[in-house]
Amino acid sequence: MTAYRLDELSSAEFGKLVEKNPIVFLPLGAVEEHGAHLPLCTDSVQPEHIVEKVAARLPGPVLIAPPIRYANCVTTRNFPGTISLSFDTVRSLVEDILNELCRNGIRRVVIVSGHAGGAHMAALRTAGETVVEGTPDLRLMVLSDYDIAYELKGKEFDERDGHAGTIETSRVMAIRPRLVKKRGVKSYDRPPRFMVLAHPERHFPTGVMGDATIASAAQGRRINEYIVKGLVEFVKQNMG
Amino acid sequence: MTAYRLDELSSAEFGKLVEKNPIVFLPLGAVEEHGAHLPLCTDSVQPEHIVEKVAARLPGPVLIAPPIRYANCVTTRNFPGTISLSFDTVRSLVEDILNELCRNGIRRVVIVSGHAGGAHMAALRTAGETVVEGTPDLRLMVLSDYDIAYELKGKEFDERDGHAGTIETSRVMAIRPRLVKKRGVKSYDRPPRFMVLAHPERHFPTGVMGDATIASAAQGRRINEYIVKGLVEFVKQNMG
Amino acid sequence: MTAYRLDELSSAEFGKLVEKNPIVFLPLGAVEEHGAHLPLCTDSVQPEHIVEKVAARLPGPVLIAPPIRYANCVTTRNFPGTISLSFDTVRSLVEDILNELCRNGIRRVVIVSGHAGGAHMAALRTAGETVVEGTPDLRLMVLSDYDIAYELKGKEFDERDGHAGTIETSRVMAIRPRLVKKRGVKSYDRPPRFMVLAHPERHFPTGVMGDATIASAAQGRRINEYIVKGLVEFVKQNMG
Amino acid sequence: MTAYRLDELSSAEFGKLVEKNPIVFLPLGAVEEHGAHLPLCTDSVQPEHIVEKVAARLPGPVLIAPPIRYANCVTTRNFPGTISLSFDTVRSLVEDILNELCRNGIRRVVIVSGHAGGAHMAALRTAGETVVEGTPDLRLMVLSDYDIAYELKGKEFDERDGHAGTIETSRVMAIRPRLVKKRGVKSYDRPPRFMVLAHPERHFPTGVMGDATIASAAQGRRINEYIVKGLVEFVKQNMG
Amino acid sequence: MTAYRLDELSSAEFGKLVEKNPIVFLPLGAVEEHGAHLPLCTDSVQPEHIVEKVAARLPGPVLIAPPIRYANCVTTRNFPGTISLSFDTVRSLVEDILNELCRNGIRRVVIVSGHAGGAHMAALRTAGETVVEGTPDLRLMVLSDYDIAYELKGKEFDERDGHAGTIETSRVMAIRPRLVKKRGVKSYDRPPRFMVLAHPERHFPTGVMGDATIASAAQGRRINEYIVKGLVEFVKQNMG
Amino acid sequence: MTAYRLDELSSAEFGKLVEKNPIVFLPLGAVEEHGAHLPLCTDSVQPEHIVEKVAARLPGPVLIAPPIRYANCVTTRNFPGTISLSFDTVRSLVEDILNELCRNGIRRVVIVSGHAGGAHMAALRTAGETVVEGTPDLRLMVLSDYDIAYELKGKEFDERDGHAGTIETSRVMAIRPRLVKKRGVKSYDRPPRFMVLAHPERHFPTGVMGDATIASAAQGRRINEYIVKGLVEFVKQNMG
Repeated sequence: MTAYRLDELSSAEFGKLVEKNPIVFLPLGAVEEHGAHLPLCTDSVQPEHIVEKVAARLPGPVLIAPPIRYANCVTTRNFPGTISLSFDTVRSLVEDILNELCRNGIRRVVIVSGHAGGAHMAALRTAGETVVEGTPDLRLMVLSDYDIAYELKGKEFDERDGHAGTIETSRVMAIRPRLVKKRGVKSYDRPPRFMVLAHPERHFPTGVMGDATIASAAQGRRINEYIVKGLVEFVKQNMG
Repeated sequence: MTAYRLDELSSAEFGKLVEKNPIVFLPLGAVEEHGAHLPLCTDSVQPEHIVEKVAARLPGPVLIAPPIRYANCVTTRNFPGTISLSFDTVRSLVEDILNELCRNGIRRVVIVSGHAGGAHMAALRTAGETVVEGTPDLRLMVLSDYDIAYELKGKEFDERDGHAGTIETSRVMAIRPRLVKKRGVKSYDRPPRFMVLAHPERHFPTGVMGDATIASAAQGRRINEYIVKGLVEFVKQNMG
Repeated sequence: MTAYRLDELSSAEFGKLVEKNPIVFLPLGAVEEHGAHLPLCTDSVQPEHIVEKVAARLPGPVLIAPPIRYANCVTTRNFPGTISLSFDTVRSLVEDILNELCRNGIRRVVIVSGHAGGAHMAALRTAGETVVEGTPDLRLMVLSDYDIAYELKGKEFDERDGHAGTIETSRVMAIRPRLVKKRGVKSYDRPPRFMVLAHPERHFPTGVMGDATIASAAQGRRINEYIVKGLVEFVKQNMG
Repeated sequence: MTAYRLDELSSAEFGKLVEKNPIVFLPLGAVEEHGAHLPLCTDSVQPEHIVEKVAARLPGPVLIAPPIRYANCVTTRNFPGTISLSFDTVRSLVEDILNELCRNGIRRVVIVSGHAGGAHMAALRTAGETVVEGTPDLRLMVLSDYDIAYELKGKEFDERDGHAGTIETSRVMAIRPRLVKKRGVKSYDRPPRFMVLAHPERHFPTGVMGDATIASAAQGRRINEYIVKGLVEFVKQNMG
Repeated sequence: MTAYRLDELSSAEFGKLVEKNPIVFLPLGAVEEHGAHLPLCTDSVQPEHIVEKVAARLPGPVLIAPPIRYANCVTTRNFPGTISLSFDTVRSLVEDILNELCRNGIRRVVIVSGHAGGAHMAALRTAGETVVEGTPDLRLMVLSDYDIAYELKGKEFDERDGHAGTIETSRVMAIRPRLVKKRGVKSYDRPPRFMVLAHPERHFPTGVMGDATIASAAQGRRINEYIVKGLVEFVKQNMG
Repeated sequence: MTAYRLDELSSAEFGKLVEKNPIVFLPLGAVEEHGAHLPLCTDSVQPEHIVEKVAARLPGPVLIAPPIRYANCVTTRNFPGTISLSFDTVRSLVEDILNELCRNGIRRVVIVSGHAGGAHMAALRTAGETVVEGTPDLRLMVLSDYDIAYELKGKEFDERDGHAGTIETSRVMAIRPRLVKKRGVKSYDRPPRFMVLAHPERHFPTGVMGDATIASAAQGRRINEYIVKGLVEFVKQNMG
């Protein structure tokens, strides 16, 4: 077992490990409305769980950087409990961290974001592009665990499943059952395509886009395993 | 016929038209590599063509704002001829224009971008969100014509078709045949998923992602008509 | 004839042309009130016309970059129809484009702005200074066609002629007669010198500073020819 | 017991709790060198521990927001393992979170930072001042647990004790004994007063400012209790 | 005599005076090369002198704010001794000061800049426009004393006179004879029109644009009186 | 005597002096409320006085840059007469000046700020850190004269003495007796520790924190001498 919490190391231990060219994982979450049945940390617990599992299966040293549990949230930004960072804040936060990892000699980084909003992911990638231009030998992967999970839509799960729906509810039931409040609802309402709205939440008042009623911990475990396997594969192929 | 080039009006004519609550279309293009067979203005001529056709089919007054032929380009940014604006420049450019349209009393705007890169579209939407928060009665639509065109992938066209491929080549053949240089190539190479790269262009040296060899003006006309119809529908439904 | 629309070239054609050290012209316009008789695109059509004529008279390859038809407008910013970009937006737009031209190997650029406002021109020059500091072998010229046209004031034209006055009206009559709405007015009102005002437009309610009643297409052609000749000369002398 | 992890609540639960005017605690840590004997998360585990204890002793509902384990570090910024955010990133991160808490109706916030660097604390306060100007009825407290702990210097502890010294080592021994690597060292070296240095670390190569050799878990427990009591008092007096 | 140094007043005295609606003068200078014969503070001593004289001739209370002796310098920026602020720094400096004067109830401000560079003046005006939009009843005048002095060119002085030339040398001889080092030189060299250059100083190696050899204190006194009279007039007309 | 006002030199004289590696002093003041008895320039006259005295006692050439009499003020920002710059403005102002001094070849700089607010000092140091990272051989000292003066608290003066109290009043009585309006007051009120407040001034309505009634010019002279001596020592030790 060669996975470490990056910040549990001392300065000297960290310095030593860097010489072995470790992969650093940075899990990103959110404080975001996820229906009445899921906790605000839904987007945090998922990538933190995935990263832990992936790290345990990779050879060579792996460091897990302290998670950030705040994100840029657009569609849900007016619901109670959402704490949305601006695009610029997310970008400079990630840019600073990547630059500091590079200054420390780190050359392999995987960012796994539980929140998969378009602007949020663009902020992460834009930060990443700035950093790789300055450090071209950095191998940098940026993805959401939902980029992998949603490959199952149209197969095992409804094509329309989304935010706080079957897949997400199932995954949280598998990872943190204690935090699932009650049975979720089913709703495929969502804001009209292409519209930029002052009040997107009015178009899905349940805060759910999918069918949470059919979720189960068993499905969640299967999805999580699917993601872990997929991510291990991606990392092995591209971060060598 | 009630469509006007916004800037061909005088100040007074414009002021008068605003009272009729016109829809303003803002076409956005790019200066971007599109293989050896398509011009750098490929992403410009398409939305400009679409907007003209859509404007002609809508009832009520429509204004076409002066197109912007520069965009934020990520994957193609190192090819000769690409002129990429930063995320921030695109965002503030569009934010300024939207704010000025609002100051002028405009309350319906449709932005149609020929370039559909993730960060570019996020810049447009982020700008839009800032403006609608300040002017909540603004009806704002932001899309790429490719959001509609790519609905045809997996149906009439290969699932993998993309940048400068069958669809795009066909469309330019229909719109500006004179600018199509020669027969395009076929290549499905692309940068590995999730990687943020200093040199994405090395992963598709032809600059093409799709099969340009089977493109035709006839297909292009059909696709363009599909987009125009779709967009007219979206506008009628959401911009009322 | 060696002048090209930059974005009608393919990536490869552009790359090839760069080896011949072409001059790139960037025409800048505005969407701005110009009295009741001139269109909002008055500041756009003039430099676009001039650049085309100048390009045709220069030896060696010339590229015309896609025009930008938006500017920073101060004095007219509250009139209907003006769409003013902020100083910062203009600056970063031009800085990005210049940097990208330099990345592409371009080393000769001429920016011709139809709008000649003090802050707008300062934005262009400030952008340019930043770029030439990073690329000292870039030969960069930034001017308004009005820097040349106004040499005729106090000679053929009234010293006080200005915005939408004799010279400007004549030029648009020569370039785009169809867009001249009606006979202009005569007014030498203008905001008091040195005052920074929330409502400068109240000091010239006609939106005209000069005598538009005596304008003519013939005069416009002569002025345009004067500018073209002057600019060809400046370019030959300084962009060698 | 009325303390909750803010993000373990659902959107609705959170919305309900807001009506009771809860105090939100935001613990801030750092990834920062702390000698060879303490972990990089030294500044994180301390305020997280304190906040938990304080929350448990306060009446009325208390919410603990997700900790942020990154800070702006100046003096230690060149040591292996330090990950320093810029001043601006810290400021906008905290400003965004505070603004979002206010949007949600929260009116009482206590920020407790384990890292006590001058610029870092200034970033937190500057963010806070901006937010209270916009929401004057927000009661906002910003402090480092070291503001309280260092009251013991010159009394129980050496006046010169500081970074990774007796107090800090003792506290971590009490909170996370497993993460204390070995016996620390004793050194009172530090950078010369007033100098702004490119390499401050050269002036205290051990990374320690104080006497870590005499630290003990017992002392740490006493100090922590002293801080908890003090902070409970401050909160009761000022956040009523 | 009703002119005061603003910062020699106490808080209460200032608060009292504000009720009388005083005019605040803000003199701006520069640290900038001015040939071998004039001091770096040339652009500072002139407006400070003018403002003092103007203040003494105006009825009603006048406050002179602490001068700022730094400016944005473009053409001379590479000469020894020039200390140039960026455009953005000048703009935010002046914007902050104006906003604070407004917060204090001040509604009449005159900014007199000794440095008259295009970008510098644009920075001052752009700052002013932002502030007057927020405080439309602010009467704000922004000018350089050279806007008035250069009215004498083509009359008493050579049309080509400029930086460190006859007028400027004469004025400093009248105001601070002790700081005039020696007899100046004569040179009409200057950078080519319209060019944006990395090294403008190479085009006027003497650092002088004009004929400093014919300067005299007597002329300087006459010019200064001309400016003072002119400015008193402008203020009386526009700041009522 | 080898101390010069930097901007009284000509460009050439300055260039020559730079070769001798002079120390540049930059005195920073403020326009800030200081009770009813002290002038708004209280924080300006003190460091300007100190710098003059220190410069006169140092061997080798010393240059005094033009003082800046504006600062970032937090606690007093709502009192009449305070003109507070934002954190960002102070930072970029000082960063620009330092960068320009470096471009000129200066390698020794001492910044002495009369205003000692936490955010203000952080702005100065943050600016300094950015500059020393780019010019690591720059020797840069940043301090407030109050960093030295307050060493006397708990010795000759009350531990609680502060803003406009015994020490400050005494110093101004010694430096600019004419500007001391009347006998000051005694008050130890201050805002509650740790609170970030919209209206800090409500917690010390006199604007004084200390006992101004016992101040005297004699004490002021002694304190000033103490600071001068201390600073001369610091400079000799660290700026060699």
